[in-house]
Amino acid sequence: MNSFSEAGSGKDQGGTVELRSLDKLIHSNNKTITMAAISKAAGVSQGAISSLLNDRDYGIRVSEKTRDRVFKACRELGYIPNDLRAVVRMYPHLGDLCVLVSQNVAALIENPFYARVLNGIFGALTAPMRNVMLAEYDAHADYAEKPELLPAPVRNGVASKFICIGGANPSLFQTLLKREHPVAFLGRGVPLPGLTTIEPDYADASRMAIGHFVKSGHKKIAIVSGPFGSSDHSVAELNRGVRNACENSGVTCDAQNILYGNLDAKSGSEALAALVARKQTPTAIFCMSDEAAAGVLSYANSAGIRVPSQLSIIGCADTAIAETLALSTVHFPAGEIGATAVRDVELRVAESELLNSKNIMLPVRLVERKSTAPATAA
Amino acid sequence: MNSFSEAGSGKDQGGTVELRSLDKLIHSNNKTITMAAISKAAGVSQGAISSLLNDRDYGIRVSEKTRDRVFKACRELGYIPNDLRAVVRMYPHLGDLCVLVSQNVAALIENPFYARVLNGIFGALTAPMRNVMLAEYDAHADYAEKPELLPAPVRNGVASKFICIGGANPSLFQTLLKREHPVAFLGRGVPLPGLTTIEPDYADASRMAIGHFVKSGHKKIAIVSGPFGSSDHSVAELNRGVRNACENSGVTCDAQNILYGNLDAKSGSEALAALVARKQTPTAIFCMSDEAAAGVLSYANSAGIRVPSQLSIIGCADTAIAETLALSTVHFPAGEIGATAVRDVELRVAESELLNSKNIMLPVRLVERKSTAPATAA
Repeated sequence: MNSFSEAGSGKDQGGTVELRSLDKLIHSNNKTITMAAISKAAGVSQGAISSLLNDRDYGIRVSEKTRDRVFKACRELGYIPNDLRAVVRMYPHLGDLCVLVSQNVAALIENPFYARVLNGIFGALTAPMRNVMLAEYDAHADYAEKPELLPAPVRNGVASKFICIGGANPSLFQTLLKREHPVAFLGRGVPLPGLTTIEPDYADASRMAIGHFVKSGHKKIAIVSGPFGSSDHSVAELNRGVRNACENSGVTCDAQNILYGNLDAKSGSEALAALVARKQTPTAIFCMSDEAAAGVLSYANSAGIRVPSQLSIIGCADTAIAETLALSTVHFPAGEIGATAVRDVELRVAESELLNSKNIMLPVRLVERKSTAPATAA
Repeated sequence: MNSFSEAGSGKDQGGTVELRSLDKLIHSNNKTITMAAISKAAGVSQGAISSLLNDRDYGIRVSEKTRDRVFKACRELGYIPNDLRAVVRMYPHLGDLCVLVSQNVAALIENPFYARVLNGIFGALTAPMRNVMLAEYDAHADYAEKPELLPAPVRNGVASKFICIGGANPSLFQTLLKREHPVAFLGRGVPLPGLTTIEPDYADASRMAIGHFVKSGHKKIAIVSGPFGSSDHSVAELNRGVRNACENSGVTCDAQNILYGNLDAKSGSEALAALVARKQTPTAIFCMSDEAAAGVLSYANSAGIRVPSQLSIIGCADTAIAETLALSTVHFPAGEIGATAVRDVELRVAESELLNSKNIMLPVRLVERKSTAPATAA
């Protein structure tokens, strides 16, 4: 008794099998398809087929063309390998979705913006009971050099669609693309053939916030920015947008009115405290996070500065806290970013060829709540 | 050429192999172990072994005792099946951790308390590059009756340790336990042999908050509770704790001072607005969520009610917003709940027998920030 033929099963329609889920496929109970039948249909030796199905090299080198021919024959016969990984190689669209995060996932889950991105990812899955794999990667590892360090879901071969969040690691992207897995990277544009990058229009967010202040008659505008000299892409883009907006509107943004910090609530409170201490209290503050904006609001409340009549505040991202505190903010389409990534990889896993690199920039919009008002005559 | 013997590989120490990761195991490249060798070592027919490794019934009924003997022989020989699922059946501790959530995962990720629980789960994983599976289940499905509806990671057989969050589904728990997978359920005590349940001491949270108010001289205490008549376990327990605390302290909590809502910020704002409109402004409010407490604070700020000199506020859970707004609250050990669940399933997957049901209740503690003060003479 040969375990291969035992394991095989198929359908007898004679055409391509419409398979909707990996699970149904594994648990389908069709008639046995032998290795000899596949060998005959593909015109390839049984040894080569076995090698392909096991993804191990038993001394038989199999060309990509042969592989395509064998897999096509298997699909046409409705052959279902017993090994989950072979199933995913043969029917890539049935593989799991894997979200890879450059360390660490724990911090990401608590970041309200990325929590919404994950929410969007889940929301876009179509299975009634949805599932994803979540794993970490090292943004600085050379995975081409050390494939043994690849995240478990990449090595295990059960996932076939990847969404990466965090630091760009071209060696990771290349490894995945080489295996013909579609990859969507939620971050800075990386020009790799086959890679899709998706991000909100950060620079436009700053332009909208500053533009709104200028239009409302504000002249003393302060900025709560990220860490000074940060190499973070989003901070760099937000800063660039501020510079653009000031140039375009003719408003000068004094260096002393730009405060740097880690964009948490404390940094917001400290920023306003510093401005007040310097007798530089602005009439409007743009904060590059909602948390910092919440900190500014907290300090204003405790210091008796009335919001919005004396001080207008605009946050950034439109996370839960902005809604809770009725803060005006620039909405980042977090859910849409996640959903776009899912749709992109779902679409591309069905295609046999990987396309050119693609950069999707999603629009942002100003949300006016209760923390903004026109500048008063005073 | 037999695909089974091709697929097999092992180590030649002759004893139990110390295997630290599923991945290393799959990619290890040891000498071939034949089915005949396993058959000889276990004293079982090759057909029965094949049946066991493929988890399919080829007409050969294999007893649990035989299964244990075959798996033991395989482990001693260092045999590694080619099929990922067979690897996990043979070496359960190498399987993935799966977090199962009763619909829906998307909402869970955005819930700051559960975001911290997930954070705790990730934090407790020991692999340098951590990974989990995240999947949904239906709290009301009968999985014993309809196993085909089980979440994909349960059916696929790559996960071997489960943490369940949300509604209790005994048929799910029983299915997992029957497969000898350890299960930790983060919720209400369910008396199933082998099941571990973990939760914070909700009732004590209310007792601490009310006790603190009473000790600080407050007599006009209001409660912002969950939806009236809610069957939610946490709300029921928090309410029970309030009743206990009032009884023990001799403070009467008038029914008109208990407000019901969905515990978001809006419900908190509306609660205080309603109390003020009725000329029933309390000197202290206990809110059964930090979001509701944030809403109370927001309304107080806008209505000119000074916090804490005129109004003390205590929230519940100690999520990020409580820290951001310097709200006093009762800390729920969310991270520890997650970590405890991981340690529990990791420990039990290594044991061959499932123990009695176990209920772990983790202590909570009051965190005093800037929203509480003693009652003034007024």
